Formats: sequence, C-alpha cells, structure tokens
Amino acid sequence: MRRYAILAPGLFATRSAKTAHGAIAYSADPTVSVIDFSQAGKRVREAVPYLDSDVPVVASLEEALAYEPTSLLVGVAPAGGALPPDWRSAILLALDAGLEIVSGLHEFLGEDAEFAAAAARNGTRIWDVRTPPPPRIFSGEGNAVAARVVLTVGSDCAVGKMTASLELTKAARAAGTNARFVATGQTGIVIAGSGIPIDRTISDFTSGAAEQLVLENRDAELLFVEGQGGISHPAFAPVTLGLLYGSCPDALVLVHLVKRTHVEDYGTPLQPLPRLIEIYETLCATVKPARVAGIALNTHGLDAAAAQRAIDEARASTGLPCDDVVRNGPAHLYAAMAPAFSAKTAALK
Amino acid sequence: MRRYAILAPGLFATRSAKTAHGAIAYSADPTVSVIDFSQAGKRVREAVPYLDSDVPVVASLEEALAYEPTSLLVGVAPAGGALPPDWRSAILLALDAGLEIVSGLHEFLGEDAEFAAAAARNGTRIWDVRTPPPPRIFSGEGNAVAARVVLTVGSDCAVGKMTASLELTKAARAAGTNARFVATGQTGIVIAGSGIPIDRTISDFTSGAAEQLVLENRDAELLFVEGQGGISHPAFAPVTLGLLYGSCPDALVLVHLVKRTHVEDYGTPLQPLPRLIEIYETLCATVKPARVAGIALNTHGLDAAAAQRAIDEARASTGLPCDDVVRNGPAHLYAAMAPAFSAKTAALK
Repeated sequence: MRRYAILAPGLFATRSAKTAHGAIAYSADPTVSVIDFSQAGKRVREAVPYLDSDVPVVASLEEALAYEPTSLLVGVAPAGGALPPDWRSAILLALDAGLEIVSGLHEFLGEDAEFAAAAARNGTRIWDVRTPPPPRIFSGEGNAVAARVVLTVGSDCAVGKMTASLELTKAARAAGTNARFVATGQTGIVIAGSGIPIDRTISDFTSGAAEQLVLENRDAELLFVEGQGGISHPAFAPVTLGLLYGSCPDALVLVHLVKRTHVEDYGTPLQPLPRLIEIYETLCATVKPARVAGIALNTHGLDAAAAQRAIDEARASTGLPCDDVVRNGPAHLYAAMAPAFSAKTAALK
Repeated sequence: MRRYAILAPGLFATRSAKTAHGAIAYSADPTVSVIDFSQAGKRVREAVPYLDSDVPVVASLEEALAYEPTSLLVGVAPAGGALPPDWRSAILLALDAGLEIVSGLHEFLGEDAEFAAAAARNGTRIWDVRTPPPPRIFSGEGNAVAARVVLTVGSDCAVGKMTASLELTKAARAAGTNARFVATGQTGIVIAGSGIPIDRTISDFTSGAAEQLVLENRDAELLFVEGQGGISHPAFAPVTLGLLYGSCPDALVLVHLVKRTHVEDYGTPLQPLPRLIEIYETLCATVKPARVAGIALNTHGLDAAAAQRAIDEARASTGLPCDDVVRNGPAHLYAAMAPAFSAKTAALK
C-alpha cells in the first residue's frame, strides 16, 4: 500500500496536473499531501473544486514528510520539458528520506545518474510509469481468455475514456462482478498501480502490448480496458487501432465529450456518433467482431437540462444505452449494458 | 554512389534474403558481388532465377573485395537472431578494408562496441537502416505539400506493396513525371538510400514519421510511398494506419496477392477487395479524403491464363484499373491510374 505525497509546484490547480487529480480521485492508494507553494494552506477541494478531498496542500517536501508518505508522485509535466531545479531538489530530498519516486514524465527519472545513485544509496526505487515493456508481437492468445474484455473507444483524445472505464469498473463491482480496470496511459497506470503505456510502444508491438495486458489480467471476470486517442485522430489513431485489435475486446463503449466538435489541436471535424460506431465495428468485424454496447457521454460544461437533452439525442440517434457516468453515476449505464458484457465473441478463423 | 558486396552466407537463395534481392533488383547503387558459400561459383541469376543479374556469388569476404565494393550490405536475418561468428569476422574484415557497413538487422550493429571501434579506427561508418528518427508528432504540414502523394495499401503484409511502388515510380518517370519512391521499410530504405523504418517508430509518433518523409520529399512532383502491413492485420495494422493518415495521401493503390486468402501467420480471412477498398477510403474520408485509384494485383504462382482471369475478376468486382505490374510491366496500370494522380485532395477542416 502506497501513501502518496504529490509534487505539483505551481500547477496543482491546472489541467497539467491531471495525473495528480486522477490519483486523488481514483487510486486505491491514498494521497496524504500535495506539494504546491501556490496553493499551500488549502485543502485539495479548495484548490480543485471537483475533487472531494480533505487532503492538505503544503509548500514544500519537508512539510509533506510530516504526513508520512511512502512515495512521491511526480504527476505534472514541467513547462518546457526540462526538470526545474526546485523539482530536482525535492526529488533528491524525497529519495534521501527513503521515499519511492513515481513519475509519469516522458523523461525517465531512473535514467538520471544523480537520482539513480540516490535511490541506490537509500535502498529505494524510481518507478517511471511510462517505461514500455520489452517488444512482443501480437500472438492471438488474447482471443482465448475467459475474461470478457470491454474497451472504451473515443471520438477524440481527452474526452473521458479513462474515467468511463474506472466508473464502469466501480459499477460492475458494486453489482457483484469481479471486474478490473486495465490501465494503458500514465495516469491510469498510477491509479491502477500497474499497466502498460501503449503510446510509448513501438508500432510493430503496439497490438502485442495491448494483448499482454489482457493476458496478465485474465484471472478477472470482466476487464475494462482504458482506450486511447480516437480512430480518426491524425496523430494518435495508430495507438487506438493497436488497442482495438490487440486487446481482443468482446464489446466496446463509445466515449464522447459533447462540447468537442473537432479533433483537439488539429481541427478535423469529429464524425457523428452513428458513423463513428460504424467505423469501430467495421474494423473489429475484420478480426474479432465486437459491437458498441453503449455510450458514455461526457456532458461536462453543460447545465442539467442541456446535458439531458444531449443524452436523449445520443440515445435516439444510435438506439443504444447512453448516460453521463460522472454526472449521473455509472450504475444505470452499467446495468443497461451488462447483457452485452455477458458473452465472449470469437476471433475470425 | 555505393558499390555493394552483399553478405548472405547460406541464405542467398532463400526468402530471408529479400533485402538482398530487393537491392539487386531495384537499387540505383550496383551490387558487385554476393557472399554465400552455398552458392559460390554461380551468377546471381543461377541462384535466384527471378533476378536477371550476372553478378558473381563468391564464398568469402576476401574474394568479394576483388570486385572493389564500397559497402557491405548485411541484407539477411540470421536464424535465431544472434550474429553467427563467421558473420562477425566478415563484418570486421570489411571494416578493416575501409568498407561502409549497411545493415537491415533488428539489432543495431553500430551499437556493438567491437564494430563501432573498428569503424572509427578505419574512418568508415555503420548505417543501421532500421534506426528510427527522433520522435515527432504529426503536425498537419504534410497536407500542404504540392507534391501529389500516392500510398500503396495492402490486403496483408508481404503481398508486393514495395515492388508495386517501385514499378509505378519507374513507369511515372518513363512518362516524364518527376516521381520518387519513398521508402518506409528496411529493404526499401536500402534500395532508395534513405527513408524511415515506420514499424520501428513509437506509436505516438508513427503518423509524424510518415509525414516527415513526405515533407523531406516534397520537392518531387509525385511520391509513391511504400505501404506496410494491412488495415485488418491483427499485429501490424497500427503501422498501416500511421502511414494512411501521416503520409497525407491524395490517392491509394491497393495491392493484393491472389494466392493469399488469410492473414499470414494469423489465419484471419482476408476481406474481399471491394470491402477492403471501402475500409481504406472510409478511414481516409474522416481526415483527408483519398480514393483507391487502382489495383496492383500480384499473380505470382499462377499460370498466364489464371493470372489474366484474376485480373479480369478484380476489375469486374471493383470497377477499377487492375494489372500485375511485374508480370505485365507497370506502364498500362500507371497510364490507367494517372488521371487519378493528377490532383491534390484537401484535409478536412
């Protein structure tokens, strides 16, 4: 069991702290303090209103140590990419205090000679969650697991696929199913405590990495695999397709953010939901058939009436169960989709 | 200008020598000798009947040096992956003779301390053609090049996409167009003398690498980009999709091997050609529309009558120009598709 201090100097209340926010909201490992001089003295919920948490925000690593963390989570990306000097000193202090370092950064802290030496000296370790596994080609073994596999697929990046997977896992467990969230991105991996950063795998081995995750979690009854990107995303669709084939899903859940109309950063218009469903199902149908069981609609930023209208419209245009699993909780959508999650589909032969 | 000696001990007449065969058939840089003790004393055409070449096959590197090569091409993969001792000694002898080493192996020879030291000592270099470029995210710039981009897409791996791209490039040049073959795999890169091994890029950067190739070759009039994999290939489709979006094609050429009915090594049935065309065009239509302009049908292994029947059937089922560019030469198919290669398409905005 980890107890996290989260390092987020000057950034805890911003979108770049999404790994920090995800860990606080969803990790089974508790966060005991957050380090951000710009928010020091507040509780988490005062700095980030959508996080219902009493955890204190402090100014420095030294103060954070009073809450007896086991691990320092570097959950925010520094502007410009390079590690600022005060972050370096906080990480070194943490290592000298015997804390494990958990990092979602692109640059691997374990490859930094000073950090590596400090970790060795203090008998602790650095977990770079973005480290890809050894190359492995898709084998087809994933088609044969008994666990039922549900993959979230999206209209775009950053629409709520991880959150939908986490919420549906909760609902399935509440309904008595041995369900497990399977993480494929750095925030998800921090939350789950394990996983593979699919977007860091070599493209020849992307499907194989997705399959490996399913094999490693085959002992559960129902897997909710965190999706990535979107099938029409000009840059990241290869990651999406590796998950679509490699995780051998039996069913898909489509995730869409109502306010998003174009691919973020590229401006390509998003496809209408029925068209998106057709594209995902068409691709699956060539390898291992899987249908979209329902829609997790992210109505963030809409008022209650507009949110309900959007949900009703998506239901009408697709004929599928649809709900916002954050606004309305995941139980209803899970119950409506559960029949579609009850059977395995077979790969084409 | 390189003059290649090709190292293929015991393997020159086998399918694992496909990089060697490709270089002899298509590279602008001549091959002056092949090293394979099992075929020594023959001419290339006697060892590999479909290669119309007089180049001598010799038993050892020492003999090969008599033909004054500038470069030693390691174009075959050793069984088991590790470099056999006699290959090592041939590579070291070549380095000591001042030859450049060109290698398509998965393991990078330049990272071998003994080889690296020998290269430095002799003032020569090791070119590992599979080395991926620095990570680069797709930017959309590729949509704006003036060059028209034609991507070969396939029903599967190893059906003739590289060959079709090379033959169509020849035909376009013969017709007076400034056309260029753009290489994306190790054999193509050896043939072209440059390129990016798309299957070795990190999946987040696969589209970006494909785009980089188009930007680097934007000075030509017409680019034939070598396709990889197949959109329904369980393991390698992410590579295919990175090329489909990243290279910003204006038109596609579908390549299919008539004798192939199932995905190689996986057994998934291949889609009928009209369905495959629909899938590729559907995906392009969500980002930057591109149509399949014609079909390069690989009739290898069929007699002349069966080949013609297969070509006629593909024409009838798709309504598109179709021919075997090896059996019948590329001029007819190129001429039939040329109108479809004359215009740029625009990305969706």
